[in-house]
Amino acid sequence: MRFVYFLSDQTGVTAETLGHSLITQFDGQDFQQVTLPFIDNEDKAKEAVLRINSSNKEQSNKPIIFSTFISEELREIVKEVDGLHLDIFDVFLEPLENELKLKSTKKSGLAHGMSDANTYMKRIEATNYALSNDDGGVTRHYDKADIILLGISRSGKTPTCLYLALQYGIYAANFPLTDEELENGAIPKSLNPHRKKLFGLTISADRLRQIRKERRAIGNYASIKQISYEIREAEKLYVKNSIKFVDTSELSIEEISGKILEKTGVQRRFRP
Amino acid sequence: MRFVYFLSDQTGVTAETLGHSLITQFDGQDFQQVTLPFIDNEDKAKEAVLRINSSNKEQSNKPIIFSTFISEELREIVKEVDGLHLDIFDVFLEPLENELKLKSTKKSGLAHGMSDANTYMKRIEATNYALSNDDGGVTRHYDKADIILLGISRSGKTPTCLYLALQYGIYAANFPLTDEELENGAIPKSLNPHRKKLFGLTISADRLRQIRKERRAIGNYASIKQISYEIREAEKLYVKNSIKFVDTSELSIEEISGKILEKTGVQRRFRP
Repeated sequence: MRFVYFLSDQTGVTAETLGHSLITQFDGQDFQQVTLPFIDNEDKAKEAVLRINSSNKEQSNKPIIFSTFISEELREIVKEVDGLHLDIFDVFLEPLENELKLKSTKKSGLAHGMSDANTYMKRIEATNYALSNDDGGVTRHYDKADIILLGISRSGKTPTCLYLALQYGIYAANFPLTDEELENGAIPKSLNPHRKKLFGLTISADRLRQIRKERRAIGNYASIKQISYEIREAEKLYVKNSIKFVDTSELSIEEISGKILEKTGVQRRFRP
Repeated sequence: MRFVYFLSDQTGVTAETLGHSLITQFDGQDFQQVTLPFIDNEDKAKEAVLRINSSNKEQSNKPIIFSTFISEELREIVKEVDGLHLDIFDVFLEPLENELKLKSTKKSGLAHGMSDANTYMKRIEATNYALSNDDGGVTRHYDKADIILLGISRSGKTPTCLYLALQYGIYAANFPLTDEELENGAIPKSLNPHRKKLFGLTISADRLRQIRKERRAIGNYASIKQISYEIREAEKLYVKNSIKFVDTSELSIEEISGKILEKTGVQRRFRP
């Protein structure tokens, strides 16, 4: 077992993301992950070092510390820690300063902070948009949509819309394909004015069965016959109506979202 | 104006998060941000280099390229780009390999991929949990909650619950404080068995007014008198019932979530 710490004078989200990307490159290791955020004064920094060093005593493996300290003073204190310490500002800020011919502002809370109230509002509004356009019941707000996801039940529409909203401020509606659309092979008339915004999700029968069984094991809902029918008709509908689509079976929410943006060219409103 | 590119053989989320943290340290710069994800073969890598180099011709400023290439071959191709190229695997993988005395697996899609179907399911389930426990109407699933957020309308409960679910797989319910609770200064009986899970949100009157006006400008809802009353009574209720709370006025969703986890000690189920 080995401790991995994510330290920051801010939220720690960047340290977590960076560190996680790196440690997942080492298979079969037992990493115990701990996030220590908001270390924004000397006392807290010293306390973090003490905490890490004291937990070391019971471990044969040295800890790995990923950090994102904007404050040089705090970064220096944390360098005292007994372990492998990797700080992204330490490594990347100087080449950036040289290229930009500028000194960095060394202010915390700019990346995941509320520095831009406007961005915050956009994000909340996009999230509210996804929530209130989640079931296809109301289509009158589709003129505001950046994208409208189609798919059968549990193909991944809702989490994808929420992720696109929270991560990128994108207005994503979702429209569930029900028996009516699947039988007709046609999209409802109310979607006609928004054809360019439509994007489909599909999924493998095995994967969908696994997901639906978790939700409701009884009845037709998770039966392989019903599932195979729905998937087949949904894909036929996409092809017939020239709607691009992606198979979500082997993809994470980040990957589904990335593929959709890549295939549609919809622009991210911001990056958090 | 200066182009900033986020390149990856995966989703590009890590490159975006890392790069964004760094460039926000330079005030007043006009950065044009472009994400080029899923560059997973030599042709795509060469195409990306061509695209960046050709857009350079119209620019006096060289571009900045943040990348997360797991494949060394692809990383080498991208190094040909005319600009400042910063790759996190290039910099951090070697010290990690030395510390762990292991070679990295050099497999893509491990961090934001579906490598762990179990993690994916947990994340979806946590998101569904947040969605179906969003309005306090049903409290019978609160035994499954990791945390139950209290707050008046538009204090930030819903986006925070969704973020905690999507980012960390945490089961977060939210219970809106209505006139009944505010007048009585008491939490409803149905919450009594879950007192330890309660956490409050508060907000400044100015900030709340700004948010509520966006939603519904008419009536009492966004009046300063009503808002001040609700905030005052909510905070009194928190204090009276020994419920920890945080002021969301100046915080981003990441910061609110980080503060809640810090103050409650609730553990992240995973990090994406």
